[in-house]
Amino acid sequence: MSTSTATPLSVAVIGAGMAGTTHANAWRQVGTVYDLGLPPVRLAAIADAYEPFATDAAERYGYEKAVTDWRDIADDPSIDIVSIVVGNALHREIAEALIKAGKHVLCEKPLADTLESARAMAEAEKQAGVVTATGFTFRRNASVAKLAELVSTGHLGEVNHFDARYWCDYGADPQTPMAWRYKGPMGSGALGDVGSHLIDTAETICGPLVSVSGAAMMTSIKERPVAKGHVTRGTALDTADAVYEEVENDDVATFTARFASGAVGTFSCSRVAWGLPNSLMVDVLGSKGRASWDLARCGEIKIDDVASPAGLGGARRVLVGPDFPYYARGSSMAVAGVGLSQIEQFTYQAHAFLQQVAGVTEGALPPCATFADGYREMLIADAVARSAASGGAEVDLTDLPI
Amino acid sequence: MSTSTATPLSVAVIGAGMAGTTHANAWRQVGTVYDLGLPPVRLAAIADAYEPFATDAAERYGYEKAVTDWRDIADDPSIDIVSIVVGNALHREIAEALIKAGKHVLCEKPLADTLESARAMAEAEKQAGVVTATGFTFRRNASVAKLAELVSTGHLGEVNHFDARYWCDYGADPQTPMAWRYKGPMGSGALGDVGSHLIDTAETICGPLVSVSGAAMMTSIKERPVAKGHVTRGTALDTADAVYEEVENDDVATFTARFASGAVGTFSCSRVAWGLPNSLMVDVLGSKGRASWDLARCGEIKIDDVASPAGLGGARRVLVGPDFPYYARGSSMAVAGVGLSQIEQFTYQAHAFLQQVAGVTEGALPPCATFADGYREMLIADAVARSAASGGAEVDLTDLPI
Amino acid sequence: MSTSTATPLSVAVIGAGMAGTTHANAWRQVGTVYDLGLPPVRLAAIADAYEPFATDAAERYGYEKAVTDWRDIADDPSIDIVSIVVGNALHREIAEALIKAGKHVLCEKPLADTLESARAMAEAEKQAGVVTATGFTFRRNASVAKLAELVSTGHLGEVNHFDARYWCDYGADPQTPMAWRYKGPMGSGALGDVGSHLIDTAETICGPLVSVSGAAMMTSIKERPVAKGHVTRGTALDTADAVYEEVENDDVATFTARFASGAVGTFSCSRVAWGLPNSLMVDVLGSKGRASWDLARCGEIKIDDVASPAGLGGARRVLVGPDFPYYARGSSMAVAGVGLSQIEQFTYQAHAFLQQVAGVTEGALPPCATFADGYREMLIADAVARSAASGGAEVDLTDLPI
Amino acid sequence: MSTSTATPLSVAVIGAGMAGTTHANAWRQVGTVYDLGLPPVRLAAIADAYEPFATDAAERYGYEKAVTDWRDIADDPSIDIVSIVVGNALHREIAEALIKAGKHVLCEKPLADTLESARAMAEAEKQAGVVTATGFTFRRNASVAKLAELVSTGHLGEVNHFDARYWCDYGADPQTPMAWRYKGPMGSGALGDVGSHLIDTAETICGPLVSVSGAAMMTSIKERPVAKGHVTRGTALDTADAVYEEVENDDVATFTARFASGAVGTFSCSRVAWGLPNSLMVDVLGSKGRASWDLARCGEIKIDDVASPAGLGGARRVLVGPDFPYYARGSSMAVAGVGLSQIEQFTYQAHAFLQQVAGVTEGALPPCATFADGYREMLIADAVARSAASGGAEVDLTDLPI
Repeated sequence: MSTSTATPLSVAVIGAGMAGTTHANAWRQVGTVYDLGLPPVRLAAIADAYEPFATDAAERYGYEKAVTDWRDIADDPSIDIVSIVVGNALHREIAEALIKAGKHVLCEKPLADTLESARAMAEAEKQAGVVTATGFTFRRNASVAKLAELVSTGHLGEVNHFDARYWCDYGADPQTPMAWRYKGPMGSGALGDVGSHLIDTAETICGPLVSVSGAAMMTSIKERPVAKGHVTRGTALDTADAVYEEVENDDVATFTARFASGAVGTFSCSRVAWGLPNSLMVDVLGSKGRASWDLARCGEIKIDDVASPAGLGGARRVLVGPDFPYYARGSSMAVAGVGLSQIEQFTYQAHAFLQQVAGVTEGALPPCATFADGYREMLIADAVARSAASGGAEVDLTDLPI
Repeated sequence: MSTSTATPLSVAVIGAGMAGTTHANAWRQVGTVYDLGLPPVRLAAIADAYEPFATDAAERYGYEKAVTDWRDIADDPSIDIVSIVVGNALHREIAEALIKAGKHVLCEKPLADTLESARAMAEAEKQAGVVTATGFTFRRNASVAKLAELVSTGHLGEVNHFDARYWCDYGADPQTPMAWRYKGPMGSGALGDVGSHLIDTAETICGPLVSVSGAAMMTSIKERPVAKGHVTRGTALDTADAVYEEVENDDVATFTARFASGAVGTFSCSRVAWGLPNSLMVDVLGSKGRASWDLARCGEIKIDDVASPAGLGGARRVLVGPDFPYYARGSSMAVAGVGLSQIEQFTYQAHAFLQQVAGVTEGALPPCATFADGYREMLIADAVARSAASGGAEVDLTDLPI
Repeated sequence: MSTSTATPLSVAVIGAGMAGTTHANAWRQVGTVYDLGLPPVRLAAIADAYEPFATDAAERYGYEKAVTDWRDIADDPSIDIVSIVVGNALHREIAEALIKAGKHVLCEKPLADTLESARAMAEAEKQAGVVTATGFTFRRNASVAKLAELVSTGHLGEVNHFDARYWCDYGADPQTPMAWRYKGPMGSGALGDVGSHLIDTAETICGPLVSVSGAAMMTSIKERPVAKGHVTRGTALDTADAVYEEVENDDVATFTARFASGAVGTFSCSRVAWGLPNSLMVDVLGSKGRASWDLARCGEIKIDDVASPAGLGGARRVLVGPDFPYYARGSSMAVAGVGLSQIEQFTYQAHAFLQQVAGVTEGALPPCATFADGYREMLIADAVARSAASGGAEVDLTDLPI
Repeated sequence: MSTSTATPLSVAVIGAGMAGTTHANAWRQVGTVYDLGLPPVRLAAIADAYEPFATDAAERYGYEKAVTDWRDIADDPSIDIVSIVVGNALHREIAEALIKAGKHVLCEKPLADTLESARAMAEAEKQAGVVTATGFTFRRNASVAKLAELVSTGHLGEVNHFDARYWCDYGADPQTPMAWRYKGPMGSGALGDVGSHLIDTAETICGPLVSVSGAAMMTSIKERPVAKGHVTRGTALDTADAVYEEVENDDVATFTARFASGAVGTFSCSRVAWGLPNSLMVDVLGSKGRASWDLARCGEIKIDDVASPAGLGGARRVLVGPDFPYYARGSSMAVAGVGLSQIEQFTYQAHAFLQQVAGVTEGALPPCATFADGYREMLIADAVARSAASGGAEVDLTDLPI
């Protein structure tokens, strides 16, 4: 077992909530995929301010220690790589400390809570000397990657229209209590949350956007009850005596955009889409075909192209399988039709990140999104918000300060 | 057979193309639906400049005579009701002549070729003393009407987002030859053609729009070959020696809108949507549920609401059936699951028009769209085009000159 | 208008219930389809024992007279063609009288209430000298006809498996009252009713069956309340004081079969399939592809074949359109994606019948199912019932007495 | 971290092919799910006769050693639990040796290559004093388990009809080379392979079968080319000079069955179903609702029940989520709509097996299928084959020798 003798890369995860444990799982599973000569991974530490979360995650996912202060991770010289999976407002401070300590950093999206912090992180990246990345995992979704491939190889011809809708229901219940996510300026609501994936996915598939316009934002549920104790996301509470506070940002956001390629884009996102837990739907229409994908049926795409016999054309339901990116040896059952889960996207991301750290180039996966990419996404979201503020006017994206 | 003794209403159709024969069929079939005490219909005449079309249609659909000059219809004092189903540029002249002759007029959409003509027709309507209508048949689609009902009765709660996409492929082939439809200003292309249905359908379901913004239009196929002889819509031609002319208007058009209700709307339409002959897809998202419909599966809608048992929620596939508007006695097989066709929408429209002419009020269908409605739709399309011309700026719709 | 001068064929319909009016509509609409030089149709008479039904149908569908005794139809020398659309138990008597009177006869399925009567009708057919037909309209369904074409042309290769499921819910409610359909021997329930379409559809697509086996029948709802007054099909009643009677025949019937081609068939039918008003689903699996169809989505078929590019294979959703049988000029809007209804199948059937009567051969539609075909279908259903009675034993079909 | 101090259970896997590595992954991941106080798992060894497979799997999945002889596993006193994931013909010998050595044994399905061997294993199980199990993982599929729950809780009322179709294409290409799977008696082909899952899934959902009948088997591709070298499953080869050998068993198998509950079952399975890599479709129809599931869309089920408002009924598409069995903490992202994969079923199975070994009863998962269950499934498959051999006659299952 040759690689066992290589020096392992030591990994830590800061944050042990749902997304944090998904990172923890990814680092644990990364060695089970592909054949690309990576060094082994040492699962070193998990940090969470809430000790039971940290301990439970470390035990479940086989990490050596659990800590409650992220600074213990930054100060541990044995650690090489760190995932940051905590609230956006903490990203900058932690990332800067980790970079300073020489760690490679994989930070969850959105990159920061403010444009200023995101800009600072993108600046820091330039000088870092370590690998830095923003966690846009949808780039590793087999279907998204396939759609991007169908566009880049010209299979669909020239794209004329891209339509994407990311509709979620986590805020659909008016009794879902007030939380930090319902505060902050217009653009940090549905747009800032699910819209960030929408924007990154659009550019992954169809290339850079050059302008946005026609943005509209609306707050459907204007106030929410304040919970007295701890309430988990999406859960309603007893509102008998509840105080209500104003919701400050967008429940629904929409915009039109243009791509550098000349294609037109239509976008909408929502956190109040009744009955849709997590529904990202994408349509790509080109001069030689079209393709579509729905995250809620992530094991398939639909494609229509010139291959159909005369009189028998129509969109094919293609099962995601070994011919898709990120599927070969992507799991221990690499055949079509066994299903796929979003969790695996994190493993592929971890894989690409490790390749970047180890300097693997032969057969390497596309690199992770950078901090600059994360900053760009926030600038685009901000441009959408500015378009909305001016009644939908066009905002140019060609001179973004990046 | 009591109604046989009533004085029949005499009907004529001007135009015997595909849509014209659909009108011819509608007047023939209208007596087979519902139980509303209409006078009988006399199928009097069909006009088409191309004599074989006129003759064939008259014979197939049982009309008494075929003529080649529409003025013969206007001059025939025995005719009460006339469908106008010819090129938009002829609508105004014919409609004005018919109104002058005291005929009731059902005119196909879009109402005219220019705003000026449409305005004139809407003005004429005010003085007419006859029934005048614009042929927005989608209002009679059982699913569209059901969605409107679900909104107006509050079943879906307050609508926060309406998303509609009308994607067609009749221009998707670059070899589809140049035609009148590819000429004219931006806004008279995909927007003017299929967008008109989109706008009327949106307002039918969710009520009036108050602004549009973020409009984008693009011409994907920039020139088309000129055919030497007669080529039918959608057919490619031998382009060996063809001359190419510039396409002047939009292949794809998108826009954002706001409804008076506060809901946000996202819209797109295309005539170059590869492989989609006629795909109108609608999603309505409200505070108590959501519903969607796809014209290509016109026998069903999807609806999600509070009725689901805990843990077993999801969109129901509801088959269009007797509980839907326009389905009871809508055909000789009024049970769910036997299928529906667009053709029937024309029959329901004819039914409503006859009720208006006959002054039936008890149990009457919603009246037809007026000329004013047709003019309004054109004004909105024009507003979209103006938004596009200014890079997506918002255009207010609350002071439309109507 | 040349055909107007031809001697018209005079048509009558016996029975003015739902199916009867569908026949009435078909004869009225038949002239609007295709270009095959038929003589014109005179709508002569409608008969129904219940006078208001007869009168209403005659008026709606434009028939000259309404009568309450079918013998008036038989005795009217001006009538050429008659549809029989009444209870099975009356078919034989009426058909024999009509044939004797020299009428052409189109009789609804199942052909008769007993094998003996069906055999007698098939015998009478041999001597008749008129056109006789059984109303298996599914043969005129565009999708069924397309599937048959895909098999007969070899597009799907050799069929190895045919699977069909006809699941209906008209008896699913235990409070749906007792009716004639719930009486009679095993085999005359779900099998006799919807199973007849299943069998005819199977043979239409894949050719003759040579044996059945493994039949199982079960009665799920063992007794039903007796209604005091008139109750329409599918309606529950107030059962406060109801008397219950035993259900005598099958709610669910299943069987396995072999085709002469060597293919295996699996079949099931049900009248207690919760929530499925009329669901006929067909899968055809061959050595070069597969195709499927669901009546509840009758505007499309699914097909998978060798045409897909590598790595992008899957079933195409093909919209029923002009390339399908029975779609060209099948309506006044002969484009794909406008929807289809079962009602049109009756019109196509009427068209084929008229061609047979008029002796049209050039470009003729496939002729209607004969009385012999109707008898054969009943013999197969009887074979299924006999298989069930013997615990599923194989019953040979190669020596049917026909 | 309290559980770390517990004595770990040491696990080995015999067989490192696709299914073997899936077992290896399951034991590795089992600790990441649920909260049930299991002892930790030590990943001890992987065996495969082909050394590179053994070494690669051990390294990827973190097992301490790789061996080429399964006897090294049996002889290792430190090992507690062993998965057997090799050819059926080896199951008995290995299982008997492992049981003798005091190991707990999880054996892949089908349990053995012959009824005699399966019977012997079931006998051995009775005396074993260790936990023994057959790997019917579909019982751990969230949708299958949900359907079983819907039946057992009466949510669907009394089931009248169960229909299941397991259609695969691994043998659809006539050039797929001869392999051991195409040899052996009728019943060991499609029926023995995918049919075993069909039978176990049926009994999991609807309870025991009491008879089968109407079985039909057919061999569609009668001979296959013999490959000269090593060819992987599903791959065609160059047949220029190939020798062909006869296929001895079934490509397609169908049967009818009766459940103890009175329900009727229709079943079919195929290994030549064009274009369907792994398609298991299940419909359950009851007196109060129906539910269906398609493995190819394993993230959802369809359900129709009495919950729908009047006139708006239809099957709901329910996303698999936290309210389904095996989903809570089933992964690090336990929300609906993130996708699911078959791989996870193996982890759940491992979890249940560990609970059985550790004697966990509080909050325990349903135990694994036993050897007796595996033997029963083979007896039922044999009964189907005997029914087929006698032309479809009924075979009683109430006196199976078990």
